[in-house]
Amino acid sequence: MKAIVAYSHQLLKDIVQHGDIVIDATCGNGNDTIFLSGLVGKFGKVYAFDIQKQAIAKTKILLEKNNINNVELIEDGHEKVTHYIVNQPIAGAIFNLGYLPNGDHSIITVPETTIHAISSMLALLKRRGRIVIVIYHGHAGGTTEKNEVLAYCEQLDQEKYQVLQYQFINQINKPPFVIAIEKTYSNLSHTLTP
Amino acid sequence: MKAIVAYSHQLLKDIVQHGDIVIDATCGNGNDTIFLSGLVGKFGKVYAFDIQKQAIAKTKILLEKNNINNVELIEDGHEKVTHYIVNQPIAGAIFNLGYLPNGDHSIITVPETTIHAISSMLALLKRRGRIVIVIYHGHAGGTTEKNEVLAYCEQLDQEKYQVLQYQFINQINKPPFVIAIEKTYSNLSHTLTP
Repeated sequence: MKAIVAYSHQLLKDIVQHGDIVIDATCGNGNDTIFLSGLVGKFGKVYAFDIQKQAIAKTKILLEKNNINNVELIEDGHEKVTHYIVNQPIAGAIFNLGYLPNGDHSIITVPETTIHAISSMLALLKRRGRIVIVIYHGHAGGTTEKNEVLAYCEQLDQEKYQVLQYQFINQINKPPFVIAIEKTYSNLSHTLTP
Repeated sequence: MKAIVAYSHQLLKDIVQHGDIVIDATCGNGNDTIFLSGLVGKFGKVYAFDIQKQAIAKTKILLEKNNINNVELIEDGHEKVTHYIVNQPIAGAIFNLGYLPNGDHSIITVPETTIHAISSMLALLKRRGRIVIVIYHGHAGGTTEKNEVLAYCEQLDQEKYQVLQYQFINQINKPPFVIAIEKTYSNLSHTLTP
């Protein structure tokens, strides 16, 4: 059975096409940014957000090392997504909730801005597009964020979104799990073909 | 994103091979029995259990209509699996918990025998084999069974089993969901190749 990170990638691989616009909502150490860059190809674009200078710097180095130039790095909170992306339908987005691995563990994503960002991105999403959220919740504050994000996702209209939870349930130490939201209607001029 | 029944089948399709022995723990109207019969092929075997004469009869008709002869129908409770399968490593099993669709809704699977059956089948499972459980829990008694089966699955040793929950979380009316248990060690002479 696919592990959590592999499954989060598979969910995007299944629907993102060359030329698409996608979002890395938490670029962190840049691994998902690189992954998304490959999915959208040279005619696509990745917007990669992080509030931490350290994350943006690390990702920038990784991009340069790999000669990647379809990524726009944005040192700002993902909740400000609509300041940067206007009138551009997105095919997908990925969040890693929690702290920056190998960074300051006291700087964490928090429910209010996380939910604001998810909500804004849902409005930008094409039909059949997906927002994938990997929820790390073992740290202080993690349980609160997990519960609030789950509550938000559970109340999404089932006529407009499918919300999937993919989780290993016999592991100790609060392992991360995946939530994926797929939009099943269109409020935009563009739609994804299956 | 794959619907519940499609995903339950995919989990078995990924690992069951021609020649394998598998179990339909609740043959019901026979749909999963037919599916499993195709997976194991003419050199494989399906043991299909149901306590209800009506289910066995319906499945028998379906098998005859499809000229299927690699299925052994057993009108008995799945908790008696070790009375029928001895020294035969199994590759997979599927359970549909709840009542027989189009049957008597008061005859339901119950936690004690369900868990007894799962436990017995785990012992018979090859390494990398899977037990897939589709939990219908909208009926009276369904919540209790769901909770007890989940509690049993959550306490399985993570060094020996991976237990996955796959569930749509924004739907009303208690929709069914999938639990899959994959065995990651071998207590038998046979193992599945990946």
